[in-house]
Amino acid sequence: MRFKQINNGYIIRLEKDEKIIETLTGFLKKKKIKSGYFSGIGAVSKSEIAHFSLDRKEYSYKALNGPLEITSLLGNIATSGSQVIIHAHITLSDSKMNVYGGHLKEAAIGATCEIILKKNNKNLNRKLDKTTNLNLLDI
Amino acid sequence: MRFKQINNGYIIRLEKDEKIIETLTGFLKKKKIKSGYFSGIGAVSKSEIAHFSLDRKEYSYKALNGPLEITSLLGNIATSGSQVIIHAHITLSDSKMNVYGGHLKEAAIGATCEIILKKNNKNLNRKLDKTTNLNLLDI
Amino acid sequence: MRFKQINNGYIIRLEKDEKIIETLTGFLKKKKIKSGYFSGIGAVSKSEIAHFSLDRKEYSYKALNGPLEITSLLGNIATSGSQVIIHAHITLSDSKMNVYGGHLKEAAIGATCEIILKKNNKNLNRKLDKTTNLNLLDI
Repeated sequence: MRFKQINNGYIIRLEKDEKIIETLTGFLKKKKIKSGYFSGIGAVSKSEIAHFSLDRKEYSYKALNGPLEITSLLGNIATSGSQVIIHAHITLSDSKMNVYGGHLKEAAIGATCEIILKKNNKNLNRKLDKTTNLNLLDI
Repeated sequence: MRFKQINNGYIIRLEKDEKIIETLTGFLKKKKIKSGYFSGIGAVSKSEIAHFSLDRKEYSYKALNGPLEITSLLGNIATSGSQVIIHAHITLSDSKMNVYGGHLKEAAIGATCEIILKKNNKNLNRKLDKTTNLNLLDI
Repeated sequence: MRFKQINNGYIIRLEKDEKIIETLTGFLKKKKIKSGYFSGIGAVSKSEIAHFSLDRKEYSYKALNGPLEITSLLGNIATSGSQVIIHAHITLSDSKMNVYGGHLKEAAIGATCEIILKKNNKNLNRKLDKTTNLNLLDI
C-alpha cells in the first residue's frame, strides 16, 4: 500500500493481493482516522460481496473469483465503540463488461486500486439496530 | 431521516420506507441548500429508474420491486426557478449480485441509506433545453 | 462543454457528441490542473470500455453502441512526465436497466454529462510499472 496526503485526506494506492477492507482498516488505525468517506477505482483478483435480507436480518454472500474491474467503490468510515468500521459497496465488471455488485465483505486487489479518502471533522458512531440487526449510523 | 453536519455538508441516514428524492428534497428546502452534490450507499425496497431516449426526447421507466443494494448513488443539487432539483443516478444489485441501473426517479429505502452531501459555494441553475426536452445545467 | 468554478474545483457539463476523456483532458490543460478527482452522471451515445488482464498484461476492449445512461463515472487526474492523464472507470445502463462497465477508454456524450471535479493540492505522478505494464500512481 502506498499513500500521499492531500488536502483533507489521502490518495491511496492498494497493491496486488492486498485486501481492501483489511488494508484500509489498518491504515485508518495507524493514521487515527475515525470518520470519513472514500471512492475508488481499480481491479480485484477475487472478492466476496453480499446482499442483505431485511426479512432474514442477515447477509447472503457470494464469492467472485477471477479478475474484475472495480467500476465503483464507495464507502464511509465510522466507529463502533473503539473499533473503526469501514462500510463499502462495490460495482465490478468482467471481461465481457457484465457487472456485479453489492456490499463489500472483502476483496483482494488485482493490478491496482486508486482511492481518494477524505476525513470528516466530526466523529460518526455506529450502533446495533435491533430492528435490522445492522450496525447503523447513530446520528 | 437523520443527519449530522460535517465540514462543508452533511452525513445523512435515510431510514426504512423513506423515499430518496422526496426526503432529500425536503431536507434541502429546510436547510436552504440550493447547490451541491452527494454520493451514497445503502439498500432500497423498491425503486423506479429510467432511461432517456434522445430520439423520442423522453424517459422510459422501469419499476424494480424487491430488496436491492445501492452500490452507487451519485447526484447533484441545482435550482430551476424557485425549485430545488435533485438529479441522481443509481446502481442497484440483487441477491444474485446482478446489477441494474439508471436515472433515479424515486426509490424507497430498505434497511438504510448513508449519504455524504456537500454544498457548492455557488448556485447552479437548470433550464429547459429544447433540443433534448431536458432541464440541463445552465452554466 | 460548459463549466462553472466552485469551491476547490469545477462543475462541468459535457454536451452532445463531446468525448469525455478528450474534452476533459483539453479542459485540464487549459486550466493547468494536474492533480484531482471527479465523479459524474449523464448519458453516452457510444463508448469503448476495457478490462485489464494481468496475465496478458493488456486491456481487451469492447465497443458499446447506442444510448446508455452513465450511472457512475469515477476518475482521477495525475501526470506522467509532461502529460496530464485521466484514469476513469464507468458504469452504464441500457433501456432495460441492464448494466455494463469497465475502464473508460473513451465515450461520446448523449444528452448531457454532469461532472464534479475537485483539485488536489499536491501533484500525483504516474510511472510505468513493469510487472503490470500499467502506468501506476507513483506515490
